[in-house]
Amino acid sequence: MDWIQFFGYFGSFLTSITFIPQVYKAWQSKSVGDLSTWMMLIVVLSTIVWLAYGFGINSGPVILANAIVLVLSLVLLYFKYIFKKDNAVSRAND
Amino acid sequence: MDWIQFFGYFGSFLTSITFIPQVYKAWQSKSVGDLSTWMMLIVVLSTIVWLAYGFGINSGPVILANAIVLVLSLVLLYFKYIFKKDNAVSRAND
Repeated sequence: MDWIQFFGYFGSFLTSITFIPQVYKAWQSKSVGDLSTWMMLIVVLSTIVWLAYGFGINSGPVILANAIVLVLSLVLLYFKYIFKKDNAVSRAND
Repeated sequence: MDWIQFFGYFGSFLTSITFIPQVYKAWQSKSVGDLSTWMMLIVVLSTIVWLAYGFGINSGPVILANAIVLVLSLVLLYFKYIFKKDNAVSRAND
């Protein structure tokens, strides 16, 4: 692996670890808080577009980073859906 | 511009617009809130690493997206510094 590839995969690693605490925090707090659905959909779209670019230029790091961020943003969207539902149920039972 | 480049620059655009509301919100609320300094430093480091990779593979979109995110995260770090200072001063004057 040359230096360029090393930088790329190190970048992928750093990008991934900046997203993981957000997912963990959302899971702990059972809330996706300030993240709007609209914003999260743009993040999902952006990772899909970046994936297309990554495959187009055959860049492992771009593909890897965006595949991880895509999965994590889909997890956040799923949390948004299930936690909203839970809150609605608990409010209905008050 | 071929389709691959189009996807790359469209990805850069989408990545940029997901960061801008965060900077705007931080400016409006005069608070960087939940964003830890540690996390923001990792974001800054990751964009620098991605920039090195982008220059290495000569990818305009990777360079552009990370240059924009680097500037925006430095702005957030600056906000974190000045808003903290303001709050400390206003508390001292209470």
